[in-house]
Amino acid sequence: MQRMPDPARTGPQRTADVRTHLRAVGADAWVATASTAGVAHLVPLSFAWDGRSIVLAAEPTSLTVRNIQASGRARLALGATRDVVLVDAELDSAVDIEGTPRALVDGYVQQAGWDPRREADPYFLLVLRPVRIQAWRESNELQGRMVMRDGEWIY
Amino acid sequence: MQRMPDPARTGPQRTADVRTHLRAVGADAWVATASTAGVAHLVPLSFAWDGRSIVLAAEPTSLTVRNIQASGRARLALGATRDVVLVDAELDSAVDIEGTPRALVDGYVQQAGWDPRREADPYFLLVLRPVRIQAWRESNELQGRMVMRDGEWIY
Repeated sequence: MQRMPDPARTGPQRTADVRTHLRAVGADAWVATASTAGVAHLVPLSFAWDGRSIVLAAEPTSLTVRNIQASGRARLALGATRDVVLVDAELDSAVDIEGTPRALVDGYVQQAGWDPRREADPYFLLVLRPVRIQAWRESNELQGRMVMRDGEWIY
Repeated sequence: MQRMPDPARTGPQRTADVRTHLRAVGADAWVATASTAGVAHLVPLSFAWDGRSIVLAAEPTSLTVRNIQASGRARLALGATRDVVLVDAELDSAVDIEGTPRALVDGYVQQAGWDPRREADPYFLLVLRPVRIQAWRESNELQGRMVMRDGEWIY
């Protein structure tokens, strides 16, 4: 931590890097949700990005699905703790995978590298719309870390 | 994800790996907390392990400190999404760093590689006692992922 950090990236650079993270194949996101009782849950989940929304797959009985359905939101971390992408997202839809548009399922399977339809238990696809995205690496990037606000890319 | 995973580790192996993660120098944890209103928060924070508790430093005005003080708990992820260590922890104490035992502060500074006392704003040290720890890498390790239950190491 005593070494000199790299120069702070510009907003457009961060946005490009965030898009790269969102399109990463076979990557996981840390997904934080909260129960109505105020208990935090956190799990790693495969994800996909369709250009507008983050798509997750999870079992309908999981705490993640139940919390997101109750609160309508989640906070996700992509990347590593020293290459942070933090996404505050709102639930667009949570639908049984059989009732999800085929293109969305195909996009998920392709990017996640895993097909929930092959599992014994039924899965839901959760479509989450980012409303705020922050991106930073070291403390010199804390300033200017916001790249999306109110659902709009800033750069 | 189509490749064959490594053989599942034994409980004692996982426990040893968890302890290695807990002692990692200069590492960050993903810290998930929830507000009483049921909104999840998630940030990466430096941590230390004193053999019994996970120690974090954060500003008293931060959402993390306020959420932990209100709920008395947090859920932390150490390691990567394919080498998961998930810790459910209860708050032992949240004290202004000036009022914290010197040994605890020194241990934190040494392991985190960062001294919150050098910051302009005052910091709190949060002492969190793990009550449940799960560790897995691939799906073949989901079974047997519990290495601590009710605050006791299983192996």
